[in-house]
Amino acid sequence: MEKEKISVNQLAFQILNRLLENPNIYGVKIEKNSSGTTLIDCGIQAKGGFEAGKAVTEICLGGCGKAEITIQEYGGCTLPTVFVYTDHPAIATLGSQFAGWQIKTKDYFAIGSGPARALALKPKELYEKIAYADNWENAIVVLETSSYPPETVLQKIADDCRVENEHLYVILVPTESLAGSIQVSGRIVETGIHKLLKLGLNPNVVEYAWGYAPIMPTHPKFVRAMGRTNDAILYGGVAHYMVNHANEEMLEQIISQAVSEASESYGKPFIEIFKKANYDFYKIDPNLFAPAAITISNIKTGKTFQAGRTNSEVLKKSLELTIKT
Amino acid sequence: MEKEKISVNQLAFQILNRLLENPNIYGVKIEKNSSGTTLIDCGIQAKGGFEAGKAVTEICLGGCGKAEITIQEYGGCTLPTVFVYTDHPAIATLGSQFAGWQIKTKDYFAIGSGPARALALKPKELYEKIAYADNWENAIVVLETSSYPPETVLQKIADDCRVENEHLYVILVPTESLAGSIQVSGRIVETGIHKLLKLGLNPNVVEYAWGYAPIMPTHPKFVRAMGRTNDAILYGGVAHYMVNHANEEMLEQIISQAVSEASESYGKPFIEIFKKANYDFYKIDPNLFAPAAITISNIKTGKTFQAGRTNSEVLKKSLELTIKT
Amino acid sequence: MEKEKISVNQLAFQILNRLLENPNIYGVKIEKNSSGTTLIDCGIQAKGGFEAGKAVTEICLGGCGKAEITIQEYGGCTLPTVFVYTDHPAIATLGSQFAGWQIKTKDYFAIGSGPARALALKPKELYEKIAYADNWENAIVVLETSSYPPETVLQKIADDCRVENEHLYVILVPTESLAGSIQVSGRIVETGIHKLLKLGLNPNVVEYAWGYAPIMPTHPKFVRAMGRTNDAILYGGVAHYMVNHANEEMLEQIISQAVSEASESYGKPFIEIFKKANYDFYKIDPNLFAPAAITISNIKTGKTFQAGRTNSEVLKKSLELTIKT
Repeated sequence: MEKEKISVNQLAFQILNRLLENPNIYGVKIEKNSSGTTLIDCGIQAKGGFEAGKAVTEICLGGCGKAEITIQEYGGCTLPTVFVYTDHPAIATLGSQFAGWQIKTKDYFAIGSGPARALALKPKELYEKIAYADNWENAIVVLETSSYPPETVLQKIADDCRVENEHLYVILVPTESLAGSIQVSGRIVETGIHKLLKLGLNPNVVEYAWGYAPIMPTHPKFVRAMGRTNDAILYGGVAHYMVNHANEEMLEQIISQAVSEASESYGKPFIEIFKKANYDFYKIDPNLFAPAAITISNIKTGKTFQAGRTNSEVLKKSLELTIKT
Repeated sequence: MEKEKISVNQLAFQILNRLLENPNIYGVKIEKNSSGTTLIDCGIQAKGGFEAGKAVTEICLGGCGKAEITIQEYGGCTLPTVFVYTDHPAIATLGSQFAGWQIKTKDYFAIGSGPARALALKPKELYEKIAYADNWENAIVVLETSSYPPETVLQKIADDCRVENEHLYVILVPTESLAGSIQVSGRIVETGIHKLLKLGLNPNVVEYAWGYAPIMPTHPKFVRAMGRTNDAILYGGVAHYMVNHANEEMLEQIISQAVSEASESYGKPFIEIFKKANYDFYKIDPNLFAPAAITISNIKTGKTFQAGRTNSEVLKKSLELTIKT
Repeated sequence: MEKEKISVNQLAFQILNRLLENPNIYGVKIEKNSSGTTLIDCGIQAKGGFEAGKAVTEICLGGCGKAEITIQEYGGCTLPTVFVYTDHPAIATLGSQFAGWQIKTKDYFAIGSGPARALALKPKELYEKIAYADNWENAIVVLETSSYPPETVLQKIADDCRVENEHLYVILVPTESLAGSIQVSGRIVETGIHKLLKLGLNPNVVEYAWGYAPIMPTHPKFVRAMGRTNDAILYGGVAHYMVNHANEEMLEQIISQAVSEASESYGKPFIEIFKKANYDFYKIDPNLFAPAAITISNIKTGKTFQAGRTNSEVLKKSLELTIKT
């Protein structure tokens, strides 16, 4: 019911507005191009950082989830950690944060996420599944990329969102940047809900959700940065879903398959798995892409189930950590 | 001195206002009844959630304490946790949050808490003890209930608070809801200060206080939900008081009696204790109602005392937790 | 580049303004003296507390770092903890927070810190090193003191900052107060960066930083309060720097020397070390003044180095903690 009344673009715009008004504090670079579209660079030519990463995470969540930077220990290794929680899990994660929009032209490729998807309805089946669509004059899209998109790409996004060019806001955030690392780790709740969806769970039964994952120090090379941010989820990510579900047996069955350790590839830093697959994503066991640990509480019965655990040994390898004495 | 200058209703209203302005975000249902009183449903017909629970906790604290949702581990089990701290412990907890107002008519019973108590002075002796009374045009009361109160009850509350009907705001939050679970766990500092008061401590010597307790996933049955939220305090709750006290020996004596493990009933989930007492509250050892762990720092001498500990085994039983492998 | 565009006094003023508008909530006493200078007492005649301590920490960080009160465990002992993070480490810590301005007259001595230093350029070499200077009409200085400064001192500060007397804001915070304890622990990132600077690191390579230290319950005697707040850093403080550095070997060499355990005096509460030095600061090994643990991540190579560890045994001694059973 409340679903129809929330506009993820409108809510996210309140957060984006703080970046637009204080670019120096957030370390972002704001640029309006000739057709009036606003580009918010959070880590390409700009520096970005903790505050930009937190803001981009909350924008990705469509303004209906919170992201907090906090402290967490992973087997004796303390790392900054992004903690997210939401009272609107399906809309915030699948309806906004999920990186489900492949934006490509001849010369450019990026995966789009964030509230603009709910205007363009990418992918459409998912929006039908969660029975949500946004309707607002401004569109905000987040591109995980290290290059500025060409005019043609921006025009395509505006067209797909059915907004005027000057009402399109494009956030650019490279995987190799701190803001990029944070916004990937901030996808922990989304990664788990998406996995549960693939295992057959109706995402609309998830009433509340929270989770956390370590913020990995960045790596300058894209492939290794990407590997490391994946490791944050696979080996350091914890998600908890409070669901209202009549079939508890089904929950018990899928939870063990919904964590990363259910994959045969589990146990090594992602970069090694990726190398072994000859850098071909399609050769990697898709079951791997899941949180390290998941908890499901069924508020219909009061029972709680847990599967998986964080793996600090792999996290430390991924970090290329040396202890000096 | 500052006591007279703080209005808990005025401060809490600033928080309540965010709910009134964004009901869809907070998942609350706002209703104005025929006599002009505003009802804020946080979990009966409405869904509520983390944000509503956090806001209700801060409203209960009379706007002069903070509540944060965070992560905490309890013996290998990570749970969302509500963390509260206040620079005005006596007013925030005893003067506002304490569930000390029994509101009953022929057909309805609920326990009232929150800032309105400081207008109605319920119970009067407690307000004399802390030398505080509020004086403001709006009254905000929190009812832990799963049904809407009848008009007669609302009229009685308005009369007792000496406010016009349209200046009364009534927050409804069931024990079985997530917001309800959070606001009970958010009473951790209040539970301990109330216990210390019963053991003879003058609450006015408590200058600063903080504490935390796990947010228990909800249970659909009232009795079990109530048991579980009690367990959050009794087995997972930690409170720390910074007091200015001349008689340190007295502090040392009462601290060991101020934690739940001082009770002979300690050691089982509350629901089992309650069953054994034939569901009769008056047969339960009243010493049980206390935080799992208490720390007292005497800022007059610089010494710190600690008693009790969290008990993750009972917490896990209370949660009906199953680890899947 | 963004350095020139940030005004630490302007940013800090936004936080200070909340204290000026809500003195009762923050427990502060505001006084305007005859020449128009505003004094903000956070713990001398006023009570201060958690909120004042958090605000003073953020003001010290020149408004370009965040401070959060949170929970952290230190070897079985849970303490409230201040967690800070910044995307502008050199400016926030060395350019503002560092207690590097000795303000003395015949009758008064205090060490000044906070954004006003960036107007007075105290000490000048440090501002040259970080290539930063502020330029704004209001100056905010923080004095760690338990007495109000005389008029002559205030005039000197205003003159050095080149601001009108009525544009000078002086925050007074005693070491023996809770706000004072928090703002010292909130210097954890600054302590480490300053130590690394002395070991030869160019502070401008530090792109992002975060850290935490326990909030020590206060002690009424200045010397012991000072010892205890030092212990928070030396035995409980953890700092993490993300640097962009070409010479990784140098990072590996200095990190082991940058933690407190590198000092021969390490291992006892500060008060004992101080006594042994006959209460003469200049006889204490200066290497001692450092965080317990430091992590450096080199974002140029993706590698991370760690040295030191927190020491809960010394922390507990420092706290004069007694466990009651």
